[in-house]
Order: sequence, then C-alpha cells, then structure tokens
Amino acid sequence: MASPNHPPDHGGDSVETRSSELRKDSVTNRWVIFSPARAKRPTDFKSKSPENPNPKPSSCPFCIGREHECAPEIFRMPDDPNWKIRVIENLYPALSRNLENQSKQPVTNTSRSIVGFGFHDVVIESPVHSIELSDIDPVGIGDVLLTYRKRIEQITQHDSINYIQVFKNQGASAGASMSHSHSQIMALPVIPPTVSSRLDGTKDHYEETGKCCLCEAKSKHFVIDESSHFVSVAPFAATFPFEVWIIPKDHSSHFHHLDDVKAIDLGGLLKLMLQKIAKQLNDPPYNYMIHTSPLKVTETQLPYTHWFLQIVPQLSGVGGFEIGSGCYINPVFPEDAAQVLREVSLT
Amino acid sequence: MASPNHPPDHGGDSVETRSSELRKDSVTNRWVIFSPARAKRPTDFKSKSPENPNPKPSSCPFCIGREHECAPEIFRMPDDPNWKIRVIENLYPALSRNLENQSKQPVTNTSRSIVGFGFHDVVIESPVHSIELSDIDPVGIGDVLLTYRKRIEQITQHDSINYIQVFKNQGASAGASMSHSHSQIMALPVIPPTVSSRLDGTKDHYEETGKCCLCEAKSKHFVIDESSHFVSVAPFAATFPFEVWIIPKDHSSHFHHLDDVKAIDLGGLLKLMLQKIAKQLNDPPYNYMIHTSPLKVTETQLPYTHWFLQIVPQLSGVGGFEIGSGCYINPVFPEDAAQVLREVSLT
Repeated sequence: MASPNHPPDHGGDSVETRSSELRKDSVTNRWVIFSPARAKRPTDFKSKSPENPNPKPSSCPFCIGREHECAPEIFRMPDDPNWKIRVIENLYPALSRNLENQSKQPVTNTSRSIVGFGFHDVVIESPVHSIELSDIDPVGIGDVLLTYRKRIEQITQHDSINYIQVFKNQGASAGASMSHSHSQIMALPVIPPTVSSRLDGTKDHYEETGKCCLCEAKSKHFVIDESSHFVSVAPFAATFPFEVWIIPKDHSSHFHHLDDVKAIDLGGLLKLMLQKIAKQLNDPPYNYMIHTSPLKVTETQLPYTHWFLQIVPQLSGVGGFEIGSGCYINPVFPEDAAQVLREVSLT
Repeated sequence: MASPNHPPDHGGDSVETRSSELRKDSVTNRWVIFSPARAKRPTDFKSKSPENPNPKPSSCPFCIGREHECAPEIFRMPDDPNWKIRVIENLYPALSRNLENQSKQPVTNTSRSIVGFGFHDVVIESPVHSIELSDIDPVGIGDVLLTYRKRIEQITQHDSINYIQVFKNQGASAGASMSHSHSQIMALPVIPPTVSSRLDGTKDHYEETGKCCLCEAKSKHFVIDESSHFVSVAPFAATFPFEVWIIPKDHSSHFHHLDDVKAIDLGGLLKLMLQKIAKQLNDPPYNYMIHTSPLKVTETQLPYTHWFLQIVPQLSGVGGFEIGSGCYINPVFPEDAAQVLREVSLT
C-alpha cells in the first residue's frame, strides 16, 4: 500500500460518494478493504508502465530458429520445424525434475523441509517475437490452453506432484524477464496456501447453502461479458483493481478436463478481456493464473471445487501493510470496474 | 517470480552446490521454495533501486514548520513546537475513523461485508527531511517505538478494533509515496489472514512440544546478532532473500507491552540491522512490519503468541506464481544470509 498524504498519482476529483467497506470473498476467504478516499475515478486508472510494442532484442532464444539456445524441449505443436507453440524446460528452474527418487518421503503436518522435486516448464506461445497472446485468434489461444492441458496430463503421471500452477507474467513489472510471449507451468509436491484457503472457503459455502459458490458466479459477482461456456466477472471482493475472473458456467473441478470446443470458446473470452484491459488501462503489465484443484481431490471435495482463470493488471504495488497483514486495499469497487470494462468498445 | 531462461540480473557463477528444497515455517505456516539454481552468490545480492540520499522536495508537508499542510495531528513528542516525532491522521485513509457508530454489527463467519471503520495514522519519525530512521540513535529509535506503543494504547480503547498493524515503507518501490521518513499504523476491525495463520502455526507447535516456537528462536533459526533483550535471526523458511526477524528473548504476546528500557535496546538492534542491510545490499528499499497478537487474545492463546518485528529488503518483485499460489521462491538460503549479515562490518 502506498504512503500517506498523497495517494499514488492522485489526479482529478476523488470518488467520495461511497464509504470505506470491507468485503470477504467466499472463494479466496480473504477480507479486502475498499477505500474510495484513495481512489481516482475508475475511468482514470491507467498503467504508468505500459507494455510498449515489444522491440526484438538482438538475440531472443524463444524465437523460431533459435531452439538450440533454449533448455531442452518437452514437445512442440505441431511437431515439425514450423511450430506454433513449444513447451520447454525452464533454464533456471525453481524446482528440480531430477530429485524424484529423493522425494518419496511422505509430507506430514510436522514436516519442516522436503527436497525440491517438481517441474518448472515454459510455454512459448508464438514463434514470432512481436506477437502478444492477445494478438492471436481465439483458435490459437485455445491451442495454448490445450498445450497447458497436454503438459498437465503428462505431469499428473508423477505421483509426488500434488498441485500444478499455470501462470503468465506479461511485462517486466509483472515479473517477466523474457519479453517474448510465454507462460509457465509449475508442478509442486505440496498444496499451496491459496489453494487450501480456497477449498476451506468454498467448502464452508457448500455446507451452508448446498451450492458451489463458483457455479453462482453470475449472481454473486459483477458480470462483464460471457461466451457460450464461460462468464467473465469482477469478483465481489476483488483483491486488485480491475481484477477479472473467467469462470466455466458448468461445474468443473479441474482445468485440464477442458475439452477442445470449450478451449476455443475460452480463447475468445480471454482474448476479449485482455484486449479490453489493454485498451482501458493503457496496455498494463499483467498476470494471469489458473486456479485449479489439487490433483488428488477427494470425492467429497468435488462438489465445491470449481476452477477459474484470474487476470490481474499490474496497476499498483504492495507495501508493508499487505506483506504484514495479508490484507489488501483496493481503491476501485468491482461494480465500477465491471461497468467500465463492459462498456469498453474495441472498434 | 521472474521468468525463464534468464533469471533476473544473473551475473557470475551460480551457487549450484545445494539442491532445491522446500521449507515450512512453524510461525508463518507457509511453504517456501529455496532455489539455488536461480541464485547469484549470496554476497552478490544488491539493490538495483537504492534509496539515494533523499533530496528535499520544494514542499514536504512532513517537515517541521509545515504542520498546517498535513491532516490533523493526534499528538507530538515532545508537546511543543520543537517536536521530534508527530502522529497525524493519514490524509487519504484506507479506513474511516468516522464510521464507528455504523460498525457495531458483529462480524460473523458468514459476514460478506462490513463498514470500513478503523484508524490509519502516520508517524513522522523526524522533523528533518534528510534524516532516515537508521540515522537516529538507539534512544531516538526507541522513542519512535514508544510512540507506536502510545498510539496503540489509545486505539485499544475502541472496542470494534481487533488488530493493529504497524508498518514502514522506505523507498518508492517498497510502497512509499512520501520520501520523508515515516511509518504507519493501521487499526482493523478484522483479524488479518497472516495473523490467523500465525496463530494456527504457533498453536500446532505448542500443542506438539509444549513450547512457544518464537521463544525457541535461537535454536530454530539462524542467529545474526543479539542485544540484552532481543535476538535478530534469518528465519529457517524465510519468504524473502535477506529477510530478518527481531524477536524478544522473553515471551511477550503484544508489542505494546514493550517497556522503556527494552524500547531503547530494540532501537539499537533495529538500527544495527538496518545499517547492515543498507551496507551489504546497496541501500535497498525496505519494509518492516510488527507482527503482534490480536487485541482480544484469549488466556489459552497467550502461551503461543509472541510478537516480533520483520524486516524485508525489497530485492525482487513477485509475479503470477506468487499471486496464484501464495508460495514464494527464495534464491538465498537463510543460513547464507545470516552468515553474510553477521560478518558485515560497519566501521
């Protein structure tokens, strides 16, 4: 959170009509502080560090023809020199794929350390340096999603892996150190904390109401757009300004159960959201994360585990308050963000 | 987390002698990935955005003589025009101190929103713009800590407040929008998520061992320095590179029970740690956070609630992996960070 006396880049009139409010989301199980006194008008939010058209560096190992400069390839689509998408190992992986034999000890509640077995892969989304994901057509974005699915299906063969996090960092201030469009797949031996909290939250909601709270997305959150099989919303207790969730309309626990038809449909809605965010917010750096379920979800957990994709434009940093408390301050009410994004015209 | 193929500012030889490892801390209850393949040598870590000597802007409302440009004052020490420390309201507070009457509804497990009642105050640590906290002598830093104590004692009179987060953002990339040295106090109507997790973690440890895991700091973590009443450590499962905790040696649940003698003692150790971090890591932006206990802690919770101060130099950003999973990747093993910081010479 930014500091006192001057909120970051405060310009123009504040939106003073609402009071501060705390909201708790039943999915993330987290309180968020909505603070209109710190806000500009929702339509005034713009990125200060836009992702300008991406100049090609003298040597980018992700470009077609430079495959030999990369870490080992896992597979490519299609499987010929004219590839559209490649999956490779991360040259500097956070976890090591070579430690599987040492990783057989069970992880208990009292474990204090375990060997760092896991997979850390990179999905190169295009052979061409200048193409961003949102430039690709819905079928092509669907192919990227189906590439995630294929790699996840391979990784699920490894019994020590308990959770697979797919994510994309677009832009340096969103964490990307390579400018060529790519995403990453991290396969972990443990269940991450956000996943445990999410299961606790959605379980509580299910026990109280008999319903999956993500199946109720259209009534619980603020709808932006929808496609045949997905809806995009600004969540009721959005952690970040202009955060967007894309949620399957039908109950589905795991992203990697996505079929080919739905992949293209999701590709279209993801493209639309990325284009609207880019136009409205001055081409901001962004992250997206696929929130799926643990691989070994139990039968009783299935009714309240429902995957979704979260898009977070990087508009503000975090400070000591967020690090210390784990609470976030959002200056934009999601109902306002939803209205702004609904009305963005791409023509 | 940064992207593949090139770790951020990778220079020189990697520290490849250790394998990746996951560690779980019994205090934060969080798994952290230690990833030496992504690391430089621990001694090569330097801030890229050092806090250069602080140029005085043409108009800083925190400077002595400009008190009328600030939000209302709460108190000053000493109480005369030649003040050393001032506590003022935040001009753009995240929570509103005027909503107390509307905040009387009980917060239940099923609450989805509550009014944003709370306090958001600023502690101006020096009348002079160019003085950083680490420039002040131990007695003067002790006075800043006693100012936190006094303001917390005032706020505890408000029954709707459940937790008070003291924090400091030093440097723009640590979240500070004012360069004049200051810290902030946020008083919340809810218990933040990190506090709940911490109580869960320390409770589990207490139930297993009969001991407070923070009383055991010297054997469980990596000691850097100590004073009469405090010890500074690199925690066993440090979330961030070169993260430091300063822990009271005697069991104490709440920061605001600090007495005057211990405040000066802590002032000295805090100064030493800030100076060592500045010298070793090229004057990085940093945050510190005081992790205390909820105001209404129960009798049974007292044996396993133990406050501490966490210092986090800002050396690396976060990306989609951290936002998505809540797991962090730390390229520096804390035993190495502790050794480096132990050996920093300030002369």
